[in-house]
Amino acid sequence: MSAPLRIGIAGLGTVGAGTVKLLHENAAQIAARCGRPLQLVAVSARDASRVRDCDVRGLRWENDPLALANAPDIDLVAELIGGSEGVAHALVLQALTNGKLVVTANKALMARHGVALSKLAQTHNAVLAFEAAVAGGVPVIDVLRHGLSANRYHRLAGILNGTCNYILSTMLSQGREFDDVLKEAQALGYAEADPTFDVGGIDAAHKLAILTSLAFGTQVNMDAVHTEGITQVTRRDMHYAGELGYVIKLLGIAEQLPTGILQRVHPCLVPSSAPMAVIGGAFNAVQLDCSAAGRILLEGAGAGAGPTASAVVSDMVQLARGVRYHPFTLPTELLAPLQPAQMGELLRCHYLRVQCEDKPGVLADITSIFAREHISVQSLIQHTHEADAPAEIVITTHETREASMQQALKQIAALPAVLTPPYRIRIESL
Amino acid sequence: MSAPLRIGIAGLGTVGAGTVKLLHENAAQIAARCGRPLQLVAVSARDASRVRDCDVRGLRWENDPLALANAPDIDLVAELIGGSEGVAHALVLQALTNGKLVVTANKALMARHGVALSKLAQTHNAVLAFEAAVAGGVPVIDVLRHGLSANRYHRLAGILNGTCNYILSTMLSQGREFDDVLKEAQALGYAEADPTFDVGGIDAAHKLAILTSLAFGTQVNMDAVHTEGITQVTRRDMHYAGELGYVIKLLGIAEQLPTGILQRVHPCLVPSSAPMAVIGGAFNAVQLDCSAAGRILLEGAGAGAGPTASAVVSDMVQLARGVRYHPFTLPTELLAPLQPAQMGELLRCHYLRVQCEDKPGVLADITSIFAREHISVQSLIQHTHEADAPAEIVITTHETREASMQQALKQIAALPAVLTPPYRIRIESL
Repeated sequence: MSAPLRIGIAGLGTVGAGTVKLLHENAAQIAARCGRPLQLVAVSARDASRVRDCDVRGLRWENDPLALANAPDIDLVAELIGGSEGVAHALVLQALTNGKLVVTANKALMARHGVALSKLAQTHNAVLAFEAAVAGGVPVIDVLRHGLSANRYHRLAGILNGTCNYILSTMLSQGREFDDVLKEAQALGYAEADPTFDVGGIDAAHKLAILTSLAFGTQVNMDAVHTEGITQVTRRDMHYAGELGYVIKLLGIAEQLPTGILQRVHPCLVPSSAPMAVIGGAFNAVQLDCSAAGRILLEGAGAGAGPTASAVVSDMVQLARGVRYHPFTLPTELLAPLQPAQMGELLRCHYLRVQCEDKPGVLADITSIFAREHISVQSLIQHTHEADAPAEIVITTHETREASMQQALKQIAALPAVLTPPYRIRIESL
Repeated sequence: MSAPLRIGIAGLGTVGAGTVKLLHENAAQIAARCGRPLQLVAVSARDASRVRDCDVRGLRWENDPLALANAPDIDLVAELIGGSEGVAHALVLQALTNGKLVVTANKALMARHGVALSKLAQTHNAVLAFEAAVAGGVPVIDVLRHGLSANRYHRLAGILNGTCNYILSTMLSQGREFDDVLKEAQALGYAEADPTFDVGGIDAAHKLAILTSLAFGTQVNMDAVHTEGITQVTRRDMHYAGELGYVIKLLGIAEQLPTGILQRVHPCLVPSSAPMAVIGGAFNAVQLDCSAAGRILLEGAGAGAGPTASAVVSDMVQLARGVRYHPFTLPTELLAPLQPAQMGELLRCHYLRVQCEDKPGVLADITSIFAREHISVQSLIQHTHEADAPAEIVITTHETREASMQQALKQIAALPAVLTPPYRIRIESL
């Protein structure tokens, strides 16, 4: 058996503690699979006195995480601190500059600085692995890098944020409103005190930008992701969608359009019969539409100590075996700048909910706006819930250019009888 | 860019032709991902004059596939002939002995000779890759080897034979009988003229034995797989299962029991809400119950030129990049002989269909057999379809030891009023 791979871990929160535990619990099997032991030698975290869900006795404690990057007795640094800037960024920069193996679970870091870090790794013959940054325990990065590497990808689509999927699934199964379920999720620790990052779709956008780069061979471009969150989805949208044969999911989608690659994160109506539709709770899933392999779906826990540690340690195992690769598979000079397609060219069917006064002429006004924008209506249902309550008109359209739909939405919002801006959800057939 | 990886392909059937096409169509992207071109230099097939679905002009033609194994200008031999013995076996033996990289799609070969081939590869510093042998385009072997390598596995369960899944899905959706759907599948080319290999569960057993070895670190042991096919499943079983909230699937399952590892392939009642239940047509799926990552599900096309070629070429890409591994991840000397658990110790709920004369006393006879064997009945429904037609009793049990169930089945079959041996399907909660 070869010499141990010596590891330093920075960050002992949920993921860090899970990683320490997994390295310990499964040490013998991991050593057999690697042909060498994975030996944890040092850890670093903000507060040395805190009680943690892992045993760090006998390990060297570094107050400064950068010491791990500079230690001659450490081969691999695991950055499990989080955040795209500050200490996490500095640690990864230093470790790569020193030619170390680096494993990170940090999606914000990879989405913001992926290209620069890839270049740095290449210059210093270092390796940067980040399976844990996307979809928790689901090994989608490994599959893009190795298992499906013979393919071109037409599209990738995923449920990439477990918090949103939990909230939407719970709204559906329990018939509750967004705010109500969010509060409960916060109380249970499933959602952060400031939930914007999750429910605003930003976390999913980070992950999507990383996957896009791996699938399409382009530079990570987080700024090009069109991002909408789930805060406007109502219990009634869930109900109307169900009547039409759909489920509402927050998806991250990247696809090749004629003018470039379109990356977007927004709520979607997904057919109830689609495999994605049945993925509930905090689960994640990624569907890859491949040129040779066809449609491949991967599904599993998207977060949590065990699943994320599984991804971190599986990266370590691969590196311990001597497997080497460029962070985004291609050498940095071959990563093409992402040519973003414009959202306006997207062709989709749409779902619209319009809240309006229940008086004659509204329907005529709305349908003439559609006619003017050459939008073909597929179905139109007027719901009146209670006496005096405003009416809700639910419309689905045939395939429509996004730009036309945005024009129509503006004009509908400006109608005097329309009470709040219409809420639109795109329909994805998958 | 490094020197090309020079490839020889033996076998130009569906998979071989698909591989030649994929190497050609996606050459530029593959070369970028590998850092070197994959260069097809020679092919071999039984009949040089046959018109094929791929372009082999300009390639060296070898009448004897073994010439590929011996050619000094070939680095990687792809064995796409099939069959566990004969030419395919001889070719792989020779190529490994010569220290070549070998890629195969041959599940029968790997299931029968996996351990010996693994030993041979190790002796000669050769590599043997076989992603295409299991689940077509679904990269389950890669995921077991790399993406989830930090985990221990409690159980793996899969829809591993597309022909059976197609037949069962069609029986269900169209309310047709097995023989009828099989004949149609044969006419459409989805099933072989001699379908025993597929519908008897043998093909799924080959694949299960390979996955078991990778997941549990044991020697491939195809003979220890308890194998039952789908030929006895009737349209009415489908219907009764549906009424009870289940779907019938042929699953391959390997799991750790107290006395060893149990491998089995047989029809199962799967809850209609399980992700596996909605996987229709010729699709394959594998569910891995992991110690850290939790439940991971992979799904996609299990056969066909494109998906299988995707697996073959993805193996080639990985080898071209210099990734090296033992065929079953562990060095051969660490692969433990599989300690098989006995089928008799399996604890499951059961579904039974008993065809009997519609006369008093039969139910009493059956229920007293259950009482004697300490089997607890969960539900019992007597179906009478037409006047004079035999009655059918459908029974579900609470969790029961397999050995007790087998005793009960024998005794029920011997009852004078019971017309045909009762048909039993195990219930898997997944």
